[in-house]
Amino acid sequence: MATPAQSLGRKPRVLSLGSVSWAGEDFVSKFEDICDLHTIQPTDRDGTVQAIADARKTRGPFDAVLILMGNGAYERFDEGLLGPLVPELKIIGSVNAGYSEFDLEWLNKNRVLVCNTVDAVAEPTADITIFLMLAALRDTSRFEQEIRTGGWRGGAKVPLLDPHGKKLGIIGMGKIGRHVARKSRVFGMDVQYYNRNQLSPELEQSLDAKYCSSVKELIETSDVISINCPLSSETRGLIGAEEFTHMKDGVILINTGRGAVVDEKALIDALEAGKVARCGLDVFDGEPRVNDYFRKSTRCIVQPHMGSWTDVAWKNAYHEAMNNVTSYFTRGKPISPVNSF
Amino acid sequence: MATPAQSLGRKPRVLSLGSVSWAGEDFVSKFEDICDLHTIQPTDRDGTVQAIADARKTRGPFDAVLILMGNGAYERFDEGLLGPLVPELKIIGSVNAGYSEFDLEWLNKNRVLVCNTVDAVAEPTADITIFLMLAALRDTSRFEQEIRTGGWRGGAKVPLLDPHGKKLGIIGMGKIGRHVARKSRVFGMDVQYYNRNQLSPELEQSLDAKYCSSVKELIETSDVISINCPLSSETRGLIGAEEFTHMKDGVILINTGRGAVVDEKALIDALEAGKVARCGLDVFDGEPRVNDYFRKSTRCIVQPHMGSWTDVAWKNAYHEAMNNVTSYFTRGKPISPVNSF
Repeated sequence: MATPAQSLGRKPRVLSLGSVSWAGEDFVSKFEDICDLHTIQPTDRDGTVQAIADARKTRGPFDAVLILMGNGAYERFDEGLLGPLVPELKIIGSVNAGYSEFDLEWLNKNRVLVCNTVDAVAEPTADITIFLMLAALRDTSRFEQEIRTGGWRGGAKVPLLDPHGKKLGIIGMGKIGRHVARKSRVFGMDVQYYNRNQLSPELEQSLDAKYCSSVKELIETSDVISINCPLSSETRGLIGAEEFTHMKDGVILINTGRGAVVDEKALIDALEAGKVARCGLDVFDGEPRVNDYFRKSTRCIVQPHMGSWTDVAWKNAYHEAMNNVTSYFTRGKPISPVNSF
Repeated sequence: MATPAQSLGRKPRVLSLGSVSWAGEDFVSKFEDICDLHTIQPTDRDGTVQAIADARKTRGPFDAVLILMGNGAYERFDEGLLGPLVPELKIIGSVNAGYSEFDLEWLNKNRVLVCNTVDAVAEPTADITIFLMLAALRDTSRFEQEIRTGGWRGGAKVPLLDPHGKKLGIIGMGKIGRHVARKSRVFGMDVQYYNRNQLSPELEQSLDAKYCSSVKELIETSDVISINCPLSSETRGLIGAEEFTHMKDGVILINTGRGAVVDEKALIDALEAGKVARCGLDVFDGEPRVNDYFRKSTRCIVQPHMGSWTDVAWKNAYHEAMNNVTSYFTRGKPISPVNSF
């Protein structure tokens, strides 16, 4: 059977919303051996709607679209934005890991494949988890504020906590959780995890991670708890008032998953009661709004959900998005489609 | 030949300046099988001088002294403090890694062995190095301040830097440097190092670290530079104005060694010129005084030289100090003496 590229009888025409330069010259050059690449510079919603319509008229039709970094400025990806590109448009390669910003109903109706990235952000997100863990164990935000206001070690509750020998409980053992497990081992932590499905014995052994058959078992026995699961109807409010009562006194809580997995009011109560010693938060329920308590307390190490915004993650995400497009055209199927019809 | 314990004809009598409880019950119990342990609670200099003199009168003589955490409050360890304990005193086990606070001339004259700790602080100091490295790569102090002042990602220069694939140059490949090398590998960094003496090929291979034959070669080719050497006449001002000119633009500098290894004025100039993107500092020249520039700039991640103040480091330091004492009495020689006569 002919590949989609062969059926076209010409190079697939790809409209890139932004420059692909983060992919690197060599990678772009190989991409252009396969595809005919056209680039527009997206701006805000109105400007991008107009630019796509103009590109269709002057340089179209297009067989594929690349959605690159900064797309929050012009989403959502729906008929209003992409309407001029159907019926020719066959596939969208996106650098986003999530895909809630895609109007899948409309895209399915028009038989447009949507592909997300699945690997690029995992390791950098694990890195920010390790950063928050070390910071919370060592009380670094408090010490930094102490120095910035003219002090030194004032008010230190010593000794600080060492990761060595502490039990780390990972909730959600997907790609990110596994990187966290692997990295935390080098700091001498004992790793246990909870996941909907237990990992294979081989994978458990290679990660040196013990399975807990319930969240309750994990939180009762962990010195540090790291949330690395996605937000879903099952995980919303997974860590609430009841769960905090089961935790060890002085536990450290890290959340780089999604804010709403934790009941933030219950977390604040647990911090106030001393049940939770410190927490490290890269995500917040209702972000970019951040609860005043987290903003003000140096027992909360806070970061603005940029865990995956690194040079390497961007390059890898561009590669994943572009590989989805070339894989579709040359082999008939993309690598990580989120829809099918 | 008889061991010192056998020569005494009784259990060695040990005066502990503070409680040994951080060593753990089991460890203390084994120590007490060998030694007769007496504890006083040190306070300030005057109080501790008095308490030692009183202990000598009511419970002495003592064959050994343990100097435990918090000894900065009553040092220095000299005739004024320990005079009442000679001539019986034979050995001091200290939890300190350094020993500049010991009056070795007086102690040598009285044939008192002094033992420091050499392993306990190495790994926690490497951990704070990794923390500062991740923080500086990810610009976390700026983002935290942004959130604490009501913002979110404002002014972010993205993408941030990923450790993966970056070249880490370690200056000083002793125990701490080697832990840094080992831990940084799990973040995908390429490790090179400078040291007075090149490591053995076996050790280089196990650390996957490449030797640079000069500081200049290292700083010209590193994306992140970590200072893990001690302060000496050779290393004072090792990184000065000239060295910064050889560095790559946008380099990250981490110092967990000693403040004076870096010429702080030259570092500030290099930050201002953009040569150094960000720095992570656990040590300062003249600490606890911290240069206003470092206090105010969030491009400087600052911590108050508590890299080794963890529960595990304390426990290990107590073990090392106590093992020096028991090793001396049962085998005739301590593990890590700093003097001999």
